[in-house]
Amino acid sequence: MNSFGTIFRVTIFGESHGTAIGTVIDGCPPGLSITPDDFIHDLTRRQSGSKGTTSRQEADIPEIISGIYEGLSTGAPITVITRNKDKRSSDYDEFKIIPRPGHADFVARVKYTGFTDPRGGGHFSGRITWGIVVAGVIAKKILTGSEISARLISAGGSSDIESALNKAIAENDSIGGIIECIVKNPPVAVGEPFFNSTESAISHLVFSIPAIKGIEFGSGFASSAMRGSGHNDPFIDENGRTSTNNSGGINGGITNGNDIIFRVVVKPTSSTGTEQTTFNFATKKMQTFKVEGRHDTCIALRMPVIVEAAAAIALADLKLVDRGINNVRSI
Amino acid sequence: MNSFGTIFRVTIFGESHGTAIGTVIDGCPPGLSITPDDFIHDLTRRQSGSKGTTSRQEADIPEIISGIYEGLSTGAPITVITRNKDKRSSDYDEFKIIPRPGHADFVARVKYTGFTDPRGGGHFSGRITWGIVVAGVIAKKILTGSEISARLISAGGSSDIESALNKAIAENDSIGGIIECIVKNPPVAVGEPFFNSTESAISHLVFSIPAIKGIEFGSGFASSAMRGSGHNDPFIDENGRTSTNNSGGINGGITNGNDIIFRVVVKPTSSTGTEQTTFNFATKKMQTFKVEGRHDTCIALRMPVIVEAAAAIALADLKLVDRGINNVRSI
Amino acid sequence: MNSFGTIFRVTIFGESHGTAIGTVIDGCPPGLSITPDDFIHDLTRRQSGSKGTTSRQEADIPEIISGIYEGLSTGAPITVITRNKDKRSSDYDEFKIIPRPGHADFVARVKYTGFTDPRGGGHFSGRITWGIVVAGVIAKKILTGSEISARLISAGGSSDIESALNKAIAENDSIGGIIECIVKNPPVAVGEPFFNSTESAISHLVFSIPAIKGIEFGSGFASSAMRGSGHNDPFIDENGRTSTNNSGGINGGITNGNDIIFRVVVKPTSSTGTEQTTFNFATKKMQTFKVEGRHDTCIALRMPVIVEAAAAIALADLKLVDRGINNVRSI
Amino acid sequence: MNSFGTIFRVTIFGESHGTAIGTVIDGCPPGLSITPDDFIHDLTRRQSGSKGTTSRQEADIPEIISGIYEGLSTGAPITVITRNKDKRSSDYDEFKIIPRPGHADFVARVKYTGFTDPRGGGHFSGRITWGIVVAGVIAKKILTGSEISARLISAGGSSDIESALNKAIAENDSIGGIIECIVKNPPVAVGEPFFNSTESAISHLVFSIPAIKGIEFGSGFASSAMRGSGHNDPFIDENGRTSTNNSGGINGGITNGNDIIFRVVVKPTSSTGTEQTTFNFATKKMQTFKVEGRHDTCIALRMPVIVEAAAAIALADLKLVDRGINNVRSI
Repeated sequence: MNSFGTIFRVTIFGESHGTAIGTVIDGCPPGLSITPDDFIHDLTRRQSGSKGTTSRQEADIPEIISGIYEGLSTGAPITVITRNKDKRSSDYDEFKIIPRPGHADFVARVKYTGFTDPRGGGHFSGRITWGIVVAGVIAKKILTGSEISARLISAGGSSDIESALNKAIAENDSIGGIIECIVKNPPVAVGEPFFNSTESAISHLVFSIPAIKGIEFGSGFASSAMRGSGHNDPFIDENGRTSTNNSGGINGGITNGNDIIFRVVVKPTSSTGTEQTTFNFATKKMQTFKVEGRHDTCIALRMPVIVEAAAAIALADLKLVDRGINNVRSI
Repeated sequence: MNSFGTIFRVTIFGESHGTAIGTVIDGCPPGLSITPDDFIHDLTRRQSGSKGTTSRQEADIPEIISGIYEGLSTGAPITVITRNKDKRSSDYDEFKIIPRPGHADFVARVKYTGFTDPRGGGHFSGRITWGIVVAGVIAKKILTGSEISARLISAGGSSDIESALNKAIAENDSIGGIIECIVKNPPVAVGEPFFNSTESAISHLVFSIPAIKGIEFGSGFASSAMRGSGHNDPFIDENGRTSTNNSGGINGGITNGNDIIFRVVVKPTSSTGTEQTTFNFATKKMQTFKVEGRHDTCIALRMPVIVEAAAAIALADLKLVDRGINNVRSI
Repeated sequence: MNSFGTIFRVTIFGESHGTAIGTVIDGCPPGLSITPDDFIHDLTRRQSGSKGTTSRQEADIPEIISGIYEGLSTGAPITVITRNKDKRSSDYDEFKIIPRPGHADFVARVKYTGFTDPRGGGHFSGRITWGIVVAGVIAKKILTGSEISARLISAGGSSDIESALNKAIAENDSIGGIIECIVKNPPVAVGEPFFNSTESAISHLVFSIPAIKGIEFGSGFASSAMRGSGHNDPFIDENGRTSTNNSGGINGGITNGNDIIFRVVVKPTSSTGTEQTTFNFATKKMQTFKVEGRHDTCIALRMPVIVEAAAAIALADLKLVDRGINNVRSI
Repeated sequence: MNSFGTIFRVTIFGESHGTAIGTVIDGCPPGLSITPDDFIHDLTRRQSGSKGTTSRQEADIPEIISGIYEGLSTGAPITVITRNKDKRSSDYDEFKIIPRPGHADFVARVKYTGFTDPRGGGHFSGRITWGIVVAGVIAKKILTGSEISARLISAGGSSDIESALNKAIAENDSIGGIIECIVKNPPVAVGEPFFNSTESAISHLVFSIPAIKGIEFGSGFASSAMRGSGHNDPFIDENGRTSTNNSGGINGGITNGNDIIFRVVVKPTSSTGTEQTTFNFATKKMQTFKVEGRHDTCIALRMPVIVEAAAAIALADLKLVDRGINNVRSI
């Protein structure tokens, strides 16, 4: 339930205000250069602090506790953790009585019969994606020659992201956004026809990221209004390069070597400074309610690097599986 | 690679013009009433024949060859197959030289080093989804009390689907569409916070269906333009019912008991009667090209039942996993 | 539950007196030559008919229904089935009231709440191992250069197997035996240090074969009486060849290139012509009981080829996994 | 590769002389009482220090870093680690040139192309079983009502273990042993007919423990000399109790509710103070060789608790899987 992958297998653990969060990465080929510093760039991108994100300061210094020897992967599982430093002992009992709309308070209570860790969302917290980013850094190293980059292309419905943010902050409300991810020079011929199509693997991982509610590859939803003759991407050379890329680099679930392109939508942050009306499970009545504390106005700002990591993990695993089966490939 | 599921585990096999296609369903609880007739309704919905679909007649009569005794599931793996009857011995060699744009011809050749079955797309054929529909029928029986229904809500960019079809047929081209799927009374509290979120499981399976290029849950992509205060679904009673359903019935990856709602986009059928220009791998030059034979103008017409099956399989598996772990639930 | 393997993944299905039995083999590399005739040799070895085995004649002709095109594997799942021809409509209701000692009648009823197929043991039948043998034939093709051979080295406690059989037949009773399996030129460096040690994978599969109750590698149980200085196998050349082979070709869970050697014990066939005393669940009293019908005096006679198949499947999967991760190996 | 289990899923990581070792336990039901103290009893049993074990002192204090809130499991993955304190910076380069007989030095170098952590066996060290013991403690809590106990029943071929030890110490050599494990009141009807038979699951885990080279259930290898009429265990009451237990509590791969009984053999510790002759990969000649440092004369002394843990983990997983599928069981 908290692991993903067939060969390159990532496990994440931890709670927002628990002792530590982390990840175990199994199935990593030996001999890859991996140092704590390698994680800093991506972890910093994920970090809060800029306008539109919470003020919580997370040092998030990664500690490698297994799997690396003299700066190189050994083939044994790699474990990376970070201690939670900025804990707050708030009163979360309120959320048992008034589950926050848009949050997991209600479902967590039902699913885990009341035993879930309520502090800061516990294991449901977006903070757990720290481990996904760490695993993504290693996955990117397996995708030699590939370049993965994601960026926020709209927020609050506007491509002028700065002004959308300012407007939302002024309204004391939160906004969502759309992130586009492009993988240049992806591994060719990875992915499987059905249950492990490249889209299946990437979407599976992407929907592991809290707040993501949609994904589209290539022309995506717009393709429903296209004609087949316009949507099909003509090949233009013997390497399989195409003149258009409506398929987002994937045919029949398998990468064709052109850029993989996909977009995901991030819903507006559930925690918002605006007053809401919802059900009180103690009084059995509706009442107004306001979430106090620090919030991200636009959590999507912090998420491009997580989306990259999700794509990298999915592709690294598909690549190692494909190699295992088809390693006599002639092309 | 051709299996999905942790407990309720579905394996599919077969080629478009091979001997037979089928599915093995493992992890099915014993005692479910299952007869060959149970499959007919959904298999017929999937079948071609109506306007906008190919004229290939597939009897598709399901034969249960294991797992059922006196009309009831035994707990052993259930295998259902159907013989391929309407085979055609066309010349598929052309597609090795001129891989069809939008098809898997190119990637299949690279991935399987030339050994793939080329007849009618082989294992890449949409025909293999027959097994997904069969498994879906059984999955729906596990989801007692739930009701899953999907329908085509637009085609070729228009909600007037009839006229969109007529227009495309007149143009000798193909169109895509958008399918909406609603699960009423879904099992509550299934799905996991991260790598097996309900969205992860459903999307993983949905992207196993050829031609699907996007999925969104609840308000989906539109939510990027919403405010958090407007997107959060207020609870209105102690069963977790909400007054709006922007989340599509899923919070934190877990079903909250409200309708699960998602939409998928189907790209226009790759095979189109319209002439295209693409690369000839023998002459190393671009040339015009036209796919002969029977095509679906709008393959999306046949796909709602497959989307339902994908959702059912995902939810059945999540339900059995959840039961295994949390079967002492008090609520 | 009825599948095994990470990459080379085998699924088996069917019941003793159902419509058909079979296997799906996923993750098979493309380009392997596979014809129905390839299975005949091993299937014949498994077949009954010789002294000490039942008289049931099973034509067992394998039908390949997917995954092979023009005699070569395509990379798609390979499905092989055979129809059950020699069905008998006996009255199995007796076994519900008097579960046979040593059989699965009792546990099957409890586990599957009475819905199990009772005919000839249903899915518990040794007949289902037909699919394991079929998968083993393909697995052996992946283990290029290796040679796997198993043989019965003792029966009824004696290495004079012929006379042990004669004695048991005369007594109208059944006997067990010990099978030794040797893999010459196994793939080197496959298997993982812990949860997928070579011993773990082989034993997991071997204990899937009904009636096997023990396994030992190399010196096995005898090694408990040895000294470390005598048990350690000294290396004698740079290929890792050792002068003794107490480890059975496996160090730290990983194959060292020397012969893999293991032995398994097969318990005496549960069905015996001798009268037994056991509990009647209807009368709630003990009573005498005799299993009628055809029995194997020594089922172990038919099992060496199944043990070979189990070893081959385990090693093929370990090999493909290892290749996927470590395919840049220098040695 | 370093994970085991379908629902109750255990991942282990760490190296003998790395930063830390540990385990992640996923799929643990919420609401179980788990404190650091709960681990102490079993971890102490595993610990070295008594006669016949090394003098290395491992404090091994477990630190729970995720998954527990206010002393109860939350349903989120439980992570437990311990820091390595007693590291020694020995020169392990010798083992690259002269791989130790009976050790994983040679295979590790081949498999991981020279990148493995050589210090104290790295990830191959028996020290990594610490995480198995920790997971076993939690697994035992899932097996409510069951009682698992393993003990060393012979060492160096003798049931007088004390004198066998004295003799081996006097000879400066190492010895193996046989451990018997009994599970009283095991969960009934867990395990699957084929690929996840109870024997498959237990043996898979047991062979993850370094130095174990054989396993037998019930009468085990002795059953090969028995008659069917003598081996079959007669039922004596309606709960499935049997008057003998030659099957070791398992019929057709499924637990019948009688005690599960199995024995494993532990080979003599590979590290021995006695001089050995083996191959020098630098000089390409045979030479004498002696492993310096602290050794266990009889590592089997420390292993009963690990064997218990392996059995507990296997049974806990089988139980949760069975519950997921068959939770409407009537009996």
